Amino acid sequence: MRILGIDPGIATIGFGLVEAQRGQANMITYGAITTPAGLPLSKRLYQISMDMEALIGQLKPDVISIEELFFNTNITTGISVAHGRGVILCAAEKCGIPLYEYTPSQVKIAVVGYGKAEKRQVMDMTRRLLHLRAVPRPDDAADALALALCHARSSTSRLPQRETVKETI
Amino acid sequence: MRILGIDPGIATIGFGLVEAQRGQANMITYGAITTPAGLPLSKRLYQISMDMEALIGQLKPDVISIEELFFNTNITTGISVAHGRGVILCAAEKCGIPLYEYTPSQVKIAVVGYGKAEKRQVMDMTRRLLHLRAVPRPDDAADALALALCHARSSTSRLPQRETVKETI
Repeated sequence: MRILGIDPGIATIGFGLVEAQRGQANMITYGAITTPAGLPLSKRLYQISMDMEALIGQLKPDVISIEELFFNTNITTGISVAHGRGVILCAAEKCGIPLYEYTPSQVKIAVVGYGKAEKRQVMDMTRRLLHLRAVPRPDDAADALALALCHARSSTSRLPQRETVKETI
Repeated sequence: MRILGIDPGIATIGFGLVEAQRGQANMITYGAITTPAGLPLSKRLYQISMDMEALIGQLKPDVISIEELFFNTNITTGISVAHGRGVILCAAEKCGIPLYEYTPSQVKIAVVGYGKAEKRQVMDMTRRLLHLRAVPRPDDAADALALALCHARSSTSRLPQRETVKETI
């Protein structure tokens, strides 16, 4: 199963593709979609939309694993990331790829085994589990690989897993 | 000039089309795009994207006037609306329609003349300025017409007006 992890954003959208079989996962590729800060928001969103569709067409994932948003810190950044995440979910849906959402805590449990693990621990375990020499760069790509790993390990274990949340509003 | 006002959301997206000439504005049509609450978020976003493109193709606006997001109240709703707004901005960009954003306060100043006006006052002034017998329903459509009126009045006056905000993150 080819799992595409996505770390959503506006300036940098991390992605990481993993092939998972019988509990084993191997990294196929990773990277980031970026948009220039000087561009109006609508143009950045359209570029993200086009780039996501191209990426999905090129990488042909079976599923997409994307971070769920929680904002207790910077609401302005949260609103901005949510604009980008909306466009990414829309592109995945357009391409007919099943979507799974995981909270940062679920990723930490799946990858490190501890829901309050440090970011550095998650990155190092991601590197080790995928047999990589170094932690992938940028951080957004490493986060995306952790999301892909999270789905790989969740879908072969009894960890809680759910499809895209249904909205009640 | 044909101005399409948009009140962004996930469940209900209000729209209102106004023809503005020499300071006078007339309502052409209004309504709402709706998505069912039971549908996964990604499917709702894709439906909004398709419906927005169809709406723009049908109504052929010269510009789009959309509400800027501010969230001091419900962050969860804010994040959800921002997902929808991202998809709407993306659709407008894809169709090549210039976008203008206005805060609720700017809409109140342009329509009522007072930045802290009550919602009811904005709706009643929208009805009067567009020579309508009753306040349009749903509220989202009335809000969208107020946004269209705001742009009509701002672009013929000295009210502050700006294109889609450039992100600095």
